[in-house]
Amino acid sequence: MLLVYEQPLNEKVRNYLRIETVAAQVEAHGRFDHPGAEWAFFRSLFELGELLERADLRSEALKDLERQLNHVALWRQAANVDQEQLNALEAQFTGLLQGLQKLTRPGQHLKTDRFLSALRQRMTIPGGYGSFDLPQFHHWQALPVEDKVAQAQSWRQELSPMVDTVRLLLTMLRETGRWTEQIAMNGCYQETSEQGLELLRVQVKQEYGVYPTISAHRHRYTIHLINYETGKGDNRNLPVRLSLSMEAK
Amino acid sequence: MLLVYEQPLNEKVRNYLRIETVAAQVEAHGRFDHPGAEWAFFRSLFELGELLERADLRSEALKDLERQLNHVALWRQAANVDQEQLNALEAQFTGLLQGLQKLTRPGQHLKTDRFLSALRQRMTIPGGYGSFDLPQFHHWQALPVEDKVAQAQSWRQELSPMVDTVRLLLTMLRETGRWTEQIAMNGCYQETSEQGLELLRVQVKQEYGVYPTISAHRHRYTIHLINYETGKGDNRNLPVRLSLSMEAK
Repeated sequence: MLLVYEQPLNEKVRNYLRIETVAAQVEAHGRFDHPGAEWAFFRSLFELGELLERADLRSEALKDLERQLNHVALWRQAANVDQEQLNALEAQFTGLLQGLQKLTRPGQHLKTDRFLSALRQRMTIPGGYGSFDLPQFHHWQALPVEDKVAQAQSWRQELSPMVDTVRLLLTMLRETGRWTEQIAMNGCYQETSEQGLELLRVQVKQEYGVYPTISAHRHRYTIHLINYETGKGDNRNLPVRLSLSMEAK
Repeated sequence: MLLVYEQPLNEKVRNYLRIETVAAQVEAHGRFDHPGAEWAFFRSLFELGELLERADLRSEALKDLERQLNHVALWRQAANVDQEQLNALEAQFTGLLQGLQKLTRPGQHLKTDRFLSALRQRMTIPGGYGSFDLPQFHHWQALPVEDKVAQAQSWRQELSPMVDTVRLLLTMLRETGRWTEQIAMNGCYQETSEQGLELLRVQVKQEYGVYPTISAHRHRYTIHLINYETGKGDNRNLPVRLSLSMEAK
């Protein structure tokens, strides 16, 4: 099995990736189809709200969407371009742009909701979500699944313009990279890049029993393969696949 | 549907109940049979470790087990007692007692484990468990389910003497109470008790749309029924069922 490890090269992509990670967690637990899902859902919902609160995030995402729309305009001028596909892409970007513009403070309603506020206050107390700490949560947990799913969706809705934008931007960013085959000699691989990097992706076969730790900045990165069992550098020469996504010009 | 709300009347029972809550969460996610289970499992595992670390907890539980063994000895002298059942109970208490006596610092190995330490450090970072923050976790997540379950069980094992003890002690404590029917007039019910209380249990029909908030100490408790929709006191006269567990003499 091939595992993909992703390394952000700037703060913006770092935030995007974390948002994507937490949003997946919110989704996984928000169907309430397994025991323990409720508390895990609220935990990750609050975490997502916290991530999306960062002041510069929305303006960065807006800039990124505008940049993507400019790309679409450029592509239109190229020969042999599927205009319909471009229309669809443009509509998607425009829709997200409008959604984000309307949304001045993502997660604001989540902060003022009485039920959610009570839960958030108990988050830091180990085990602080039993029937005496949070009787209202105990009541809520016993509601029919469809009611819980509906309410969870309404809470998530406020966050979804940002989440959907981040997801699409990451997809676009990933697609700009091309996979190349490399060998990590003595478990190490290093490279410099003239063009600034935004995202580095590393594929490693799981059966090697290693995972990469990456130190990197915009123009240079070093990958060390760490043996999972020993926690130390692995000295074998191992094949890895790399994909680099560059900063937009 | 009848929902049971439990109110501890002292710090010890409060801790026991929180441990039980978190242990259920650890179990629910520790089968890794649903997406998102991994991170939820580690979160609750660390939470459980934190709860079990409290200095006086182990000695309190040991005292409680010894008290239970004394009860067994007393019951033996009564007529018409099922001696076999008493033997089984005694064996259970003795087994837990020995397990706890061996265990001087529950959760100690969880603290020194390299993998777990790396994860614990990232717990406070929102979304800090993606492939760049924790590549070793990313690797671990992709292991076969049976490997993950086995490892999770070995981590939990160290905590299980305390968890099993707490569960049995709570079961015994609950069984000492008897359910009685009461009416909460204007959504309120109040009572005093000469004998010291350890645990108060309240059963309310879910369809009333209320949950109890309880203020209580050893000799007196007040139950207010709160309307889930409004978040305010509910003034109806509503039937509730109560069960009181007293302090051991």
